Amino acid sequence: MRTSQYLLSTLKETPADAEVKSHQLMMRAGMVRKIAAGLYTWLPTGLRTLRKVEAIVRQEMEKAGAVEVSMPVVQPAELWQESGRWEAYGPELCRFKDRGNRDFVLGPTHEEVITALVRGEVSSYKQLPLNLFQIQTKFRDEVRPRFGVMRGREFLMKDAYSFHLDKASLEDTYQKMHQAYCNTFSRMGLDFRPVVADTGSIGGSASHEFQVLADSGEDLIAVSTGSDFAANVEMAEAMAPSAERAAPGAELALLDTPNAKTIDDLVSQFGIAIDKTVKTLIVKGASEEAPLVALLVRGDHELNEIKAEKLPQVASPFAFADEAAIRAAIGAGPGSLGPVGLKLPVIVDRSVAVMSDFAAGANVDGKHHTNVNWDRDAQFAAVADIRNVVAGDPSPCGQGTIELKRGIEVGHIFQLGTKYSEAMKATVLSEQGKATVMEMGCYGIGVSRVVAAAIEQNHDDKGIIWPDAIAPFQVVIIPMNMHKSHRVQDAAEQLYQELQAAGIEVLFDDRKERPGVMFADMELIGIPHSIIIGERGLDTNEVEYKSRRSGDKDNLPLDQVVASLKAKLQA
Amino acid sequence: MRTSQYLLSTLKETPADAEVKSHQLMMRAGMVRKIAAGLYTWLPTGLRTLRKVEAIVRQEMEKAGAVEVSMPVVQPAELWQESGRWEAYGPELCRFKDRGNRDFVLGPTHEEVITALVRGEVSSYKQLPLNLFQIQTKFRDEVRPRFGVMRGREFLMKDAYSFHLDKASLEDTYQKMHQAYCNTFSRMGLDFRPVVADTGSIGGSASHEFQVLADSGEDLIAVSTGSDFAANVEMAEAMAPSAERAAPGAELALLDTPNAKTIDDLVSQFGIAIDKTVKTLIVKGASEEAPLVALLVRGDHELNEIKAEKLPQVASPFAFADEAAIRAAIGAGPGSLGPVGLKLPVIVDRSVAVMSDFAAGANVDGKHHTNVNWDRDAQFAAVADIRNVVAGDPSPCGQGTIELKRGIEVGHIFQLGTKYSEAMKATVLSEQGKATVMEMGCYGIGVSRVVAAAIEQNHDDKGIIWPDAIAPFQVVIIPMNMHKSHRVQDAAEQLYQELQAAGIEVLFDDRKERPGVMFADMELIGIPHSIIIGERGLDTNEVEYKSRRSGDKDNLPLDQVVASLKAKLQA
Repeated sequence: MRTSQYLLSTLKETPADAEVKSHQLMMRAGMVRKIAAGLYTWLPTGLRTLRKVEAIVRQEMEKAGAVEVSMPVVQPAELWQESGRWEAYGPELCRFKDRGNRDFVLGPTHEEVITALVRGEVSSYKQLPLNLFQIQTKFRDEVRPRFGVMRGREFLMKDAYSFHLDKASLEDTYQKMHQAYCNTFSRMGLDFRPVVADTGSIGGSASHEFQVLADSGEDLIAVSTGSDFAANVEMAEAMAPSAERAAPGAELALLDTPNAKTIDDLVSQFGIAIDKTVKTLIVKGASEEAPLVALLVRGDHELNEIKAEKLPQVASPFAFADEAAIRAAIGAGPGSLGPVGLKLPVIVDRSVAVMSDFAAGANVDGKHHTNVNWDRDAQFAAVADIRNVVAGDPSPCGQGTIELKRGIEVGHIFQLGTKYSEAMKATVLSEQGKATVMEMGCYGIGVSRVVAAAIEQNHDDKGIIWPDAIAPFQVVIIPMNMHKSHRVQDAAEQLYQELQAAGIEVLFDDRKERPGVMFADMELIGIPHSIIIGERGLDTNEVEYKSRRSGDKDNLPLDQVVASLKAKLQA
Repeated sequence: MRTSQYLLSTLKETPADAEVKSHQLMMRAGMVRKIAAGLYTWLPTGLRTLRKVEAIVRQEMEKAGAVEVSMPVVQPAELWQESGRWEAYGPELCRFKDRGNRDFVLGPTHEEVITALVRGEVSSYKQLPLNLFQIQTKFRDEVRPRFGVMRGREFLMKDAYSFHLDKASLEDTYQKMHQAYCNTFSRMGLDFRPVVADTGSIGGSASHEFQVLADSGEDLIAVSTGSDFAANVEMAEAMAPSAERAAPGAELALLDTPNAKTIDDLVSQFGIAIDKTVKTLIVKGASEEAPLVALLVRGDHELNEIKAEKLPQVASPFAFADEAAIRAAIGAGPGSLGPVGLKLPVIVDRSVAVMSDFAAGANVDGKHHTNVNWDRDAQFAAVADIRNVVAGDPSPCGQGTIELKRGIEVGHIFQLGTKYSEAMKATVLSEQGKATVMEMGCYGIGVSRVVAAAIEQNHDDKGIIWPDAIAPFQVVIIPMNMHKSHRVQDAAEQLYQELQAAGIEVLFDDRKERPGVMFADMELIGIPHSIIIGERGLDTNEVEYKSRRSGDKDNLPLDQVVASLKAKLQA
């Protein structure tokens, strides 16, 4: 491609409404343009990368045995009424009427359509397992579209849905898809982690998110320093400390703490080590006999509400008790609570169970205990993992310790079970001739989001640094002052032909621009490999090679450029 | 691909609501499924062909210098208000409100979005010409969606838009796109014609439709037997007969014709040759001085209203006079009109101008004249081409005669001019620094419609007959009773591997089905080349080749199958 016949559309200024780096760079590099909130046109440079991401996703899906279909964007309301989501789905579901006054939606996802399709096409266990995917436009009417294509309203998604006679088959396909996702993001050259995720409202038994690591990511992930273990911070198990509980070292003491409402106050005003303090949190209980339950975590830890909600003693949905209820039950406010003499079920975190000589509220306003010791001064009803992991915790995988990283979710796989197949009566006949509700899995990749996530992970002050596999062009030819030098022009033209003939995707910057403008544009766009052709080098039949990622420069004989680039691209 | 891991979904019965062959066959061959009126899911077999059509279109667009972008399906109303089409476009434009109560549309076409984009990105004549295309989902809320994907509501379209400083540049790109369209449909193996088309309400100076020839086509096309001339029947010029007008042969006579209201009555009741009769049609005139105008065509010809409307004497929009107005002006009803003594401007078709001794109404109810002759008995004010061409007419290209064919419109190219760029103020600075409204062209291909049109042109009683280039698979391996013969299974498996390794797209029918079922399915789906493997043939290391199109069969040594198929596919 020649820039003179292309729509380069780079910008010098960063648009004011672009908050995150990927949005800024996608605008400046001429990848996208906004036409309304959350709606973007993909310009040629952006589309080239989008299509590469799409092609890799398609190839890996096919390798994993998934078969491609394409479902409409516009879906009839009847299907959503059948699944129950016509009512349950919030205003992100864009509903409208056609000219005949019939209700339709713009598909934010396609469980209903695919389940209705497979219900109609598949009747026997012999046709299973079946794994169907599509790469297609979706619409979600986000309340606050932001971060460019990272959270747009119209976006490109790969969604796959698998159908099975039983759970074992679902688990088998789930593993294959997990591997396919790893292959997909590896091929794109991205640093990512598959992380154990909460199955949330979708239910089902297993779920993984695929997170591209980037400092700007919205999600917090716990990874192991000693293995490839990774989990959403909410999902990572906080292990019991290996140390046993020490014997009591001092007598229980009562301390006047009129100005200590928080753990930090206690630490700063009385010089108590924070890992010798305990927070006592009162939450609603699951039973009438115990309408309130005390949850204790160490002063430097945070309660994990998802873990807490799974305890049999704790109400679901999870809720903190309000101050009035706490005062009525205990006689003190939330800033002065502790286990000594507490008449509620006490559930302690694993870290708290091994503490000794610790400080906690005395259940009297303005007073704390120090040197509290279990058994001697207070009792707990149960020990459980109820906190978020922190950096340095032992990894639940048994190897290494926990590190916290930030990530951008680009994929999510679920073992759905029978949620949709049950509601929509999608059954097959088993080998025994019995109508059996199919087990389902679903597997998504945010194709357009991958592009933004890749930029968040791969950029510097000058612009984007594309991995080879998803770069809009692999190579750019930058001729210096070509319009004043026939020699430069001839060499550039010839190299352009040769690179194209070698199947290399090359951009030829044939604009009448100063070299500085061309360098800046190409670094902004992030083309991995540059060949710079100038008069001086041609004196010795040489051109300059420059790597966008390393910044390394090298002189190359003209007749070795193609071979050298081929080698770099295969590496 | 193995059928056992695929969603074949062939049907034995033809769905009741499928009226046309392509719709019936797309349903039966498992290509599409309806999810609501005009909304279809593409099943794997259909999608494979759709993607091939898409790939050919993309490649030819790129060869023609067009650059790919992707615009959203959902478009803000503001752009349509700017162009004036928010009001002007009928209920086919699906309008809806987002959660913030702002107006949006589902794009039926993208002139507004692209014009707004280019207005923002292009500022100088140096950036022109620019030709941008996309291949993308469109939605038109058809009042009566029918014929499957032929006239669906959601469909896949390639739309390109070109921008120019002047008309000469527009015409140049228009010619390139015309050629690219010819290349595109030729590569798909389709019998098609580029036909001169009416520019209609879009205006502009030139337009061609690309019509796939098929007996079931909705459009009537005039083609030449002696050249590649083709035009919409409404647009084809009806040439003046080469014969000169003969001298009068008999005296004018008055005939009582009480029961002759039509030309057919006149012919059947009085034995007058139809090409010796003239129809006199009264239409509204363009001026107050001549509010009615008489148009005369031969009895066996049809008035062409589009041609008539372009006459300076005729009102636009074209309208016939009603009977009351005719009686008031002439004193007789529409069944008895003629040129003799007529007090209206008389405009005659070129064929009528050379007639002599013809029959026409006498402007008295129930009476006709015979042996009417121009000059002697009546006069005309002008001669013009005002009729549709008929088979056998001399071709306007000067070579051969006209044949009439039926076609399905799969592409349409327009020289738009400044309709949108003017309304939306899309200007560039010219070399002289003057703001200049850009000239625009637009170029569409109905990608999903091509699939249906190809089937209308290529099928028989057994099913679809795909051209190689757009077949869902190039080759199918049909093993006979493989599940009873290791030898057949081994040979089939090995051939399957070899064909895949050779880059041939092969379907391996590994179902446990009777050979008859497999043959019927594969003929229905229309895979061009079959390899049938049976016990008997393997005795001599042979398999059977069968061509779907010709039905020809051939025995092939097993070790020559790959080379033989490669040769056939390259042919």
